[in-house]
Amino acid sequence: MRVLVLHGPNLNLLGTRETGVYGTITLEDIDARLHDLAAELGVELECFQSNSEAALVSRLHTAPGQFDAVVFNPAAFTHYSIALRDAVAAVELPVVEVHLTNVYGREEFRRRSVIAPVAAGQISGFGVTSYLLGLRAAVELVGREAGVRA
Amino acid sequence: MRVLVLHGPNLNLLGTRETGVYGTITLEDIDARLHDLAAELGVELECFQSNSEAALVSRLHTAPGQFDAVVFNPAAFTHYSIALRDAVAAVELPVVEVHLTNVYGREEFRRRSVIAPVAAGQISGFGVTSYLLGLRAAVELVGREAGVRA
Amino acid sequence: MRVLVLHGPNLNLLGTRETGVYGTITLEDIDARLHDLAAELGVELECFQSNSEAALVSRLHTAPGQFDAVVFNPAAFTHYSIALRDAVAAVELPVVEVHLTNVYGREEFRRRSVIAPVAAGQISGFGVTSYLLGLRAAVELVGREAGVRA
Amino acid sequence: MRVLVLHGPNLNLLGTRETGVYGTITLEDIDARLHDLAAELGVELECFQSNSEAALVSRLHTAPGQFDAVVFNPAAFTHYSIALRDAVAAVELPVVEVHLTNVYGREEFRRRSVIAPVAAGQISGFGVTSYLLGLRAAVELVGREAGVRA
Amino acid sequence: MRVLVLHGPNLNLLGTRETGVYGTITLEDIDARLHDLAAELGVELECFQSNSEAALVSRLHTAPGQFDAVVFNPAAFTHYSIALRDAVAAVELPVVEVHLTNVYGREEFRRRSVIAPVAAGQISGFGVTSYLLGLRAAVELVGREAGVRA
Amino acid sequence: MRVLVLHGPNLNLLGTRETGVYGTITLEDIDARLHDLAAELGVELECFQSNSEAALVSRLHTAPGQFDAVVFNPAAFTHYSIALRDAVAAVELPVVEVHLTNVYGREEFRRRSVIAPVAAGQISGFGVTSYLLGLRAAVELVGREAGVRA
Amino acid sequence: MRVLVLHGPNLNLLGTRETGVYGTITLEDIDARLHDLAAELGVELECFQSNSEAALVSRLHTAPGQFDAVVFNPAAFTHYSIALRDAVAAVELPVVEVHLTNVYGREEFRRRSVIAPVAAGQISGFGVTSYLLGLRAAVELVGREAGVRA
Amino acid sequence: MRVLVLHGPNLNLLGTRETGVYGTITLEDIDARLHDLAAELGVELECFQSNSEAALVSRLHTAPGQFDAVVFNPAAFTHYSIALRDAVAAVELPVVEVHLTNVYGREEFRRRSVIAPVAAGQISGFGVTSYLLGLRAAVELVGREAGVRA
Amino acid sequence: MRVLVLHGPNLNLLGTRETGVYGTITLEDIDARLHDLAAELGVELECFQSNSEAALVSRLHTAPGQFDAVVFNPAAFTHYSIALRDAVAAVELPVVEVHLTNVYGREEFRRRSVIAPVAAGQISGFGVTSYLLGLRAAVELVGREAGVRA
Amino acid sequence: MRVLVLHGPNLNLLGTRETGVYGTITLEDIDARLHDLAAELGVELECFQSNSEAALVSRLHTAPGQFDAVVFNPAAFTHYSIALRDAVAAVELPVVEVHLTNVYGREEFRRRSVIAPVAAGQISGFGVTSYLLGLRAAVELVGREAGVRA
Amino acid sequence: MRVLVLHGPNLNLLGTRETGVYGTITLEDIDARLHDLAAELGVELECFQSNSEAALVSRLHTAPGQFDAVVFNPAAFTHYSIALRDAVAAVELPVVEVHLTNVYGREEFRRRSVIAPVAAGQISGFGVTSYLLGLRAAVELVGREAGVRA
Amino acid sequence: MRVLVLHGPNLNLLGTRETGVYGTITLEDIDARLHDLAAELGVELECFQSNSEAALVSRLHTAPGQFDAVVFNPAAFTHYSIALRDAVAAVELPVVEVHLTNVYGREEFRRRSVIAPVAAGQISGFGVTSYLLGLRAAVELVGREAGVRA
Repeated sequence: MRVLVLHGPNLNLLGTRETGVYGTITLEDIDARLHDLAAELGVELECFQSNSEAALVSRLHTAPGQFDAVVFNPAAFTHYSIALRDAVAAVELPVVEVHLTNVYGREEFRRRSVIAPVAAGQISGFGVTSYLLGLRAAVELVGREAGVRA
Repeated sequence: MRVLVLHGPNLNLLGTRETGVYGTITLEDIDARLHDLAAELGVELECFQSNSEAALVSRLHTAPGQFDAVVFNPAAFTHYSIALRDAVAAVELPVVEVHLTNVYGREEFRRRSVIAPVAAGQISGFGVTSYLLGLRAAVELVGREAGVRA
Repeated sequence: MRVLVLHGPNLNLLGTRETGVYGTITLEDIDARLHDLAAELGVELECFQSNSEAALVSRLHTAPGQFDAVVFNPAAFTHYSIALRDAVAAVELPVVEVHLTNVYGREEFRRRSVIAPVAAGQISGFGVTSYLLGLRAAVELVGREAGVRA
Repeated sequence: MRVLVLHGPNLNLLGTRETGVYGTITLEDIDARLHDLAAELGVELECFQSNSEAALVSRLHTAPGQFDAVVFNPAAFTHYSIALRDAVAAVELPVVEVHLTNVYGREEFRRRSVIAPVAAGQISGFGVTSYLLGLRAAVELVGREAGVRA
Repeated sequence: MRVLVLHGPNLNLLGTRETGVYGTITLEDIDARLHDLAAELGVELECFQSNSEAALVSRLHTAPGQFDAVVFNPAAFTHYSIALRDAVAAVELPVVEVHLTNVYGREEFRRRSVIAPVAAGQISGFGVTSYLLGLRAAVELVGREAGVRA
Repeated sequence: MRVLVLHGPNLNLLGTRETGVYGTITLEDIDARLHDLAAELGVELECFQSNSEAALVSRLHTAPGQFDAVVFNPAAFTHYSIALRDAVAAVELPVVEVHLTNVYGREEFRRRSVIAPVAAGQISGFGVTSYLLGLRAAVELVGREAGVRA
Repeated sequence: MRVLVLHGPNLNLLGTRETGVYGTITLEDIDARLHDLAAELGVELECFQSNSEAALVSRLHTAPGQFDAVVFNPAAFTHYSIALRDAVAAVELPVVEVHLTNVYGREEFRRRSVIAPVAAGQISGFGVTSYLLGLRAAVELVGREAGVRA
Repeated sequence: MRVLVLHGPNLNLLGTRETGVYGTITLEDIDARLHDLAAELGVELECFQSNSEAALVSRLHTAPGQFDAVVFNPAAFTHYSIALRDAVAAVELPVVEVHLTNVYGREEFRRRSVIAPVAAGQISGFGVTSYLLGLRAAVELVGREAGVRA
Repeated sequence: MRVLVLHGPNLNLLGTRETGVYGTITLEDIDARLHDLAAELGVELECFQSNSEAALVSRLHTAPGQFDAVVFNPAAFTHYSIALRDAVAAVELPVVEVHLTNVYGREEFRRRSVIAPVAAGQISGFGVTSYLLGLRAAVELVGREAGVRA
Repeated sequence: MRVLVLHGPNLNLLGTRETGVYGTITLEDIDARLHDLAAELGVELECFQSNSEAALVSRLHTAPGQFDAVVFNPAAFTHYSIALRDAVAAVELPVVEVHLTNVYGREEFRRRSVIAPVAAGQISGFGVTSYLLGLRAAVELVGREAGVRA
Repeated sequence: MRVLVLHGPNLNLLGTRETGVYGTITLEDIDARLHDLAAELGVELECFQSNSEAALVSRLHTAPGQFDAVVFNPAAFTHYSIALRDAVAAVELPVVEVHLTNVYGREEFRRRSVIAPVAAGQISGFGVTSYLLGLRAAVELVGREAGVRA
Repeated sequence: MRVLVLHGPNLNLLGTRETGVYGTITLEDIDARLHDLAAELGVELECFQSNSEAALVSRLHTAPGQFDAVVFNPAAFTHYSIALRDAVAAVELPVVEVHLTNVYGREEFRRRSVIAPVAAGQISGFGVTSYLLGLRAAVELVGREAGVRA
């Protein structure tokens, strides 16, 4: 099983700025934690961060065939990128939307995800654990579909 | 570590009605799956379902001292029970909000959770897996706090 | 054919208070009128009033098997009880929503029914006649389904 | 007792188009069913369909004196014809608003009736039965008023 | 100078129904009062009432050439007839919108006129006097334009 | 008969600024035109302009006893001065709201008058003629009330 | 004179949780303070707390005859319980709505009370003093009515 | 292949009024241009203009059998005529909605078409060319369907 | 202890106009009742009424040092005077907002107070008793702060 | 005449995914169809697809001089890219907005185009035919302007 | 060159209250800083503060002729004083709107300025520097206009 | 002191298109004016324009360490780029938002800046002067912070 992890804009700064909101863990730490869990679950993993909507759209486009599922933190794009929504809807893979913070307890505009309606599900509020649970969810979803196909 | 699992209204019907939307898994199945995982994680578990807002409020009130965290599927109460919101805010335990379905892909009114802003985090869309991930999240949150206290 | 009649909160006060709005007919009068019509139509009837959302949810849960249809005046719950909406959607019986008054001619908030979208139909504004027509509608709906099955 | 039945725009197509939504019953069938019930109830009946708002307004204007009550399916006009609303308010007859389908379970814009606030009551969702119940309601309302006058 | 007076839907009932809201004056009375004032002001007058949006649109279309100004009480059409708005905008005559009642003191939906933005001005709340002032306004507007042309 | 004419804020600049919107007529011209008409109608007139909400409120307070009616152009206060609304409602005189321009054809916020619901009626869009018609309306209203009392 | 004091959901936790928002005073303290003042004012008092909407509705139903007025802190139910609103409207007693905190200075959703429109009045923001003033207001209202009856 | 062209209210004035907005081309010119193109495409054409919603509804009702497709400029009815929307939905022909002007660049209320959701498609902004492209679109849609049936 | 009582616009008319809404008690009566209670409570009192927003703002500015608390009925200014809101926020005294009527049971626009979020608390609906309770609340708040300081 | 065809994000996937919504035609097929028609019309054509908002903005910037008109399917960017709107407004070429599907019959958010107000016109709902008609419209618009210049 | 500086309500308290929000600088300090910069720029300056909307309106009215530009901090009036908006629009001078704080980062209601649409520009968030930049902007605007006239 | 100037999308076209709205000054002119002022103020300056949201996000990310402050005209991104908002919030530098035009006097959607709440302040409406004042503001903000640190 292969899973693609996508990190949206500004997540490259993680752990170095606004640590009061986002904590001191870096994106490298998160990727390392994800690789550890992937190894434990027997999953191949690739992590990709970009500040570019187009780069994320394109990475999603090439995911089918290379990957069985996607764990996606769209960050700021969550709230307005219909291009990413359409890309998520277009790729025929389970996409798990994850957020480090509880977006429902922050500014009003962060409560609306344009991507969630076409994602398989959403996990928010647990910091790096959101990603780890997202990976587990992705594995589960792929297994379930495989079970249906079998 | 002890975790309380709360199931909101109508979840007692799970697996027997509207199986097109909610699947054929029953609440007993979910509780069994949760107990299995709890055993694996070394967690004591209690599961409680009620159609009564007051019963859920009261169960939350008595949770501190008895439990270290709560996994809560408020079902229909998600969208209007400010009484449950206030109860979640009042108990000083991490509360993980879970949903079987992807509430963001259903009717408009299901996209608003009055409880999410005061929950620790939210997991939706993965069926029984939402609960299992919720239990893992709760364990992680308690461990993290314990780490802070230690 | 068996029909369950459900009366929502405050309807127990009918005929004793706010008679300017709701008239002097009591809930007992309504139930008597319903039993008369039921006898005429060859229908077994049970009437149940509760101020408790949970009690109404639970009564709906046990209706299938015991009853063929439900006539339901959700009263104040009409406007916010998504728990009752979900219960109505879950039971696979025709549910006829009735209101004594013309809710569309009263306060703005009374014009929205969260239950109507999942009810079979709605009758409002005719006083006790709303219930009597509701019973006729329920009988008709059950007969129609029986015809389909036959 | 004399009752006028008014059918709004596009109802002349009933049973011949969009049968998935509206069924295969024709307007002639409905009128026949209404006449049968009218005969049973000792009511004189006239049925009138028009696609013209003005024709319906004018038919309402001449109803007092000729009829004791009106059963009215305003169809599309339900949602915007304030001219019909004002006509309903102006004629001093009980007007029962009926709908074949459950308008509350369809498109958002169908949930608002500009006519309901000035109608005596509303019945929706029961197909031809909505009309039959509407006729019974009209008879009941006229009888009640007669009782008050007597 | 020639002025066309247009009366919208239901105004033919004036003085015979809902006299509590609209008073006992009839449309004939209003037209008589208008003709008296027209005679005093040396104005030729034609009065036209219709319940039909199309008839009013068409009457407006033929007004230029025949009339120098229009006094128009669109009644219920005030609030939704964009067809009449477009007709008012299309004819190159001053159109004075008049209302018998103070529409701003009634139901919320009566506070919005889709016609007012393209009318020359609006007069509301003075009963038959609204029409009489409207005629004076029309005469003034025509005179002013004539002055500009001269 | 005595009539008070009230001019709201910025109207003292009339004819000297923004002549493209408001024309070249000055407030003195308007008052002169009003006095001429008042003389013709046998009415005593007083005109008062203020940029101060409090001054206008106080002038309204002292109007009963001194005047029989008020012609009021609240200008910018039209859209937010609930203090003036309450003053208009409190004085038991007919108050005619007038506007030089067609406020319904200008910015969105000018379409809402907080005063109109408690005024006797409203006249807008005719320039100085709005005032003159307002004076006629006031005279008519006082005469009508006098007739009722007589 | 007899006064019923009703406490809504979660108020049983008062003084033990979220003391930063609600202070350290307990519900027992409040009841004691109320009994002291009642004694001083010669009023019989009963205090009742419930997390159950139905229990509060039912307690209100039985209040007439037993009590002359009600002091009611609906807590979370303030914002959505139309069932309680209808119960308050149905009982023909003065009901004084009280809140410990200034609900207008907290979250947006706390600024709307569905109960206030049918209460006699509202007192918010003074902690336990809100209750004490509420008791005084209730006494005053009963005295005033008694005065009217005398 | 036979195509019906429907022109909505006020379009009969085209080219004679408001030429600044709509240009100097007349409805006759448009029909001539359409007939030329129809001849070129081997299409039989009928053009019908009405200011009457009812006439347009009725013309749509009789179109099936007589025509294979409809090109429809609903003009002002675009924005509120649910009767026309229902007629478009009822006739089982492809209906192409066309507009002379770019309705999205005009007043806010012109941006909402109640008809578009049930039309096959929409073309706006190209003057007479909107109609010509609409005719081509209609021909294409009919051909496509014929292809599917063949 | 010294308390300033501020009365907003139109309150000078109290008892002389709109007695159906506001009763027959005059502002002088209210001030007298307040002085009586002040004497009883050992409080020095000054009462000030103005129809001028600026005068009320300025009176608030000079209150610190002269007074320990303010009882303020902003009347119409409640709903829009952000200048008064900022003045209330700026003076470092407890300000108790009072209203004679139950503003939540009147027009929609009266339900929003721009001042309440920065007031200490709010009392509405009890007539002159609102003021008296407001004075008691003010005394209590000052005593509490004094207790904290002591 | 030279025309630039711009395809927005995710359109590169056309015909390979979500074929239920978008059909099996590929972007290459569309471009081929467009080139065929361009040849027939004597038009030079260039087609450009990008998932990048910036790339599309930049391609628009360089269009003047190279091209006489643009046919643009902004896809997801239709609904939020004000950068593209400003680019469309800035280039002084006719831009025809096209959509494969009827965006007015899909999700609510797809009904708003931020680009349409500054486009020359819009064509939606006809699949590849939308593009072909768009090309014809562009040719027509350029010819018309050329005619004006000539 | 002469510039008028206007300070709105409550700004007289600057530096003495709410120093956490507005800092410790006083209005006198601001005026001194402005005079220093004015001297440096060769500008004559007058500063005027008022809590009275009417006084500010009147000061604006007399500005033309006396001053070449205005720097205006409307404070609370920013959000509702249409009277001041109309005054700004009426005086034919460049008016620069300034705010000490970043109004877009504070309460929702502070994000709307009714004055900004008719001001020349707006500067907010820099404390006293907002005024100093505002003065520079005013000087620049006057110079630019002078250049145009020259 | 070093300041980064960021120009958003379409600003590269400045002075060459839509000169009626944006004037004839080019971006090069603006940068030259900024360099002149920077030299005068002893500031090192770098200017960067991009049509790419990602490029602007990335330029902001690398600004800390290289620059002491940012002057940012987000152009179209002002209204929807939450990615840029988050980047502005993340970099711990003062960011001054500038706009050439008065965005509050243009289309409704331009009145909302998603970036302003996290910027230090905003300057709009003064053409190139907005940038120059923005540079002065940035210098002032850096100096102030340096003063705090010193």
